[in-house]
Amino acid sequence: MSVLVVGSIALDTVKTPVEKHTDQLGGSASYAAVGASFFAPVKLVGVVGEDFPASEFAFWKTRDIDASGVQRAPGKTFRWSGEYAWDLNTRETKSVALNVFENYKPELPESFRATEFVLLANIAPSLQSHVLDQMRRPRFVVADTMDLWIETTRRDLDALLPRVDLLILNDSEARQMTGETSLIRAGRAIRRMGPKYVAVKKGEHGALLFGPDDFFSCGAYPLEDIHDPTGAGDTFAGGVAGYLAGECEGKVDFPQLRKALIYGSVLASFNVEAFSLDRLRRLTSEEIEDRYQMFKLMSQFEVLE
Amino acid sequence: MSVLVVGSIALDTVKTPVEKHTDQLGGSASYAAVGASFFAPVKLVGVVGEDFPASEFAFWKTRDIDASGVQRAPGKTFRWSGEYAWDLNTRETKSVALNVFENYKPELPESFRATEFVLLANIAPSLQSHVLDQMRRPRFVVADTMDLWIETTRRDLDALLPRVDLLILNDSEARQMTGETSLIRAGRAIRRMGPKYVAVKKGEHGALLFGPDDFFSCGAYPLEDIHDPTGAGDTFAGGVAGYLAGECEGKVDFPQLRKALIYGSVLASFNVEAFSLDRLRRLTSEEIEDRYQMFKLMSQFEVLE
Repeated sequence: MSVLVVGSIALDTVKTPVEKHTDQLGGSASYAAVGASFFAPVKLVGVVGEDFPASEFAFWKTRDIDASGVQRAPGKTFRWSGEYAWDLNTRETKSVALNVFENYKPELPESFRATEFVLLANIAPSLQSHVLDQMRRPRFVVADTMDLWIETTRRDLDALLPRVDLLILNDSEARQMTGETSLIRAGRAIRRMGPKYVAVKKGEHGALLFGPDDFFSCGAYPLEDIHDPTGAGDTFAGGVAGYLAGECEGKVDFPQLRKALIYGSVLASFNVEAFSLDRLRRLTSEEIEDRYQMFKLMSQFEVLE
Repeated sequence: MSVLVVGSIALDTVKTPVEKHTDQLGGSASYAAVGASFFAPVKLVGVVGEDFPASEFAFWKTRDIDASGVQRAPGKTFRWSGEYAWDLNTRETKSVALNVFENYKPELPESFRATEFVLLANIAPSLQSHVLDQMRRPRFVVADTMDLWIETTRRDLDALLPRVDLLILNDSEARQMTGETSLIRAGRAIRRMGPKYVAVKKGEHGALLFGPDDFFSCGAYPLEDIHDPTGAGDTFAGGVAGYLAGECEGKVDFPQLRKALIYGSVLASFNVEAFSLDRLRRLTSEEIEDRYQMFKLMSQFEVLE
């Protein structure tokens, strides 16, 4: 089945202590769509400016990403610029220019409205809700969010949560959202706000998954060389939603969600190996499967009878 | 097979934002010995003062801990006092009185010297080496260490490392010891310093295990209510060494070490549920096995064919 991905499409300028890359493809939907595309056909919704490279549309085509929901608007593409500290764990936003994104309201092509799986990549929760308003009873809705929306548009976020099947956020956001220091308490508290499942990302420490009766914990794929952490969370969300869309014929259940989290982690681990989407552009399904098997080997502690 | 445990035996005064307990059983060897005792007979080596309660000797007997290597010396027992911050993640040492520990040099009873498994719980590395000097070719040596020794007695620690099969330390200590920010690089670098295996504890994020050809990553058991984190690392080390001594008939291999890490995590997760060794005192093997199975359930993502 297909997955609809909506979010930001940007041109990023990213500086690490070692390298700087200017005006490269970025944005939550860009990473998420390509991450998902390894598992299922993707319908992409977003906006770009007149300066957005046509070559990216060509790239999407090669990845079976239907970009007919990407609107080209007068003006410039959304731009973001950030700089990472020496350990690549903290980053500072240097500049944001919303440009065509400023007054954007995602409108879904008619042919997109019955898509079974939805990934609301990281954008304002009011826009995420606006997308759901246009959809015909999707089977499973994944939503990503961030600290900015928890701080500034909490009411919109609270209104969205009961409409979401799986909410993805990181550890500090989970703590911020609940005031709980324990991630276990935080994860459970967020479930009570509406989402059936909650995935808490812990960066290099992996992720936790909370369900009505189940709990899952996984590590992150161990990486020695990280080049650019930008988009890791978006790629993770894309991998999760894509895997679910590609693999779940019937109802999404907890065992499938466990695997989806591993595939999301695998995708994210590749993404940080190069700047922008450069690693994802040349990634193969065989590489994903190999790393998934490595994940299994490194986290198994008992051969099950 | 038995495991020899050597380390500190103390009377601790611990304050959390909620409770304060005075002169309770503590010290690295106390936690480690009781942790190990759930899996194998323990031979305990340490020193206590004239004020040390006889009831603790009686307790050790009930746990099949041979305390004939615990010397009662003139003077007072080693005392430590610490206070935890509100999140229980940071603690401040309020006072340390070495007392009988000040000039202590562990001397092993003749009957202890051929013990097959050894756990050098956290004490000065020169004392850990002194214990190994007295032993007859132990089959497997586990050593725990801490930031203090990395800072102040690095040369002694470096001399110990090639004599150790498994070194246990926490994430910040691994970074401190190697200057590497990546834990993967740090773990590998420490292996090159001598130990065949290195376990890096990450607190609530679980642990990593590095071997000559293998890598293992596990989460921590999710806890909502932590009462006293004191001794968690020591209990973990005790669980690991005890499990290996109890289960490994032949050579210790990587699959056994994986399981040992899980059992160590299980033991540590119980320990923090109450002050001092209070939870371990009433812990049962059934509870340990139940939590081990929970661990399996929460970390499995694929039923192996």
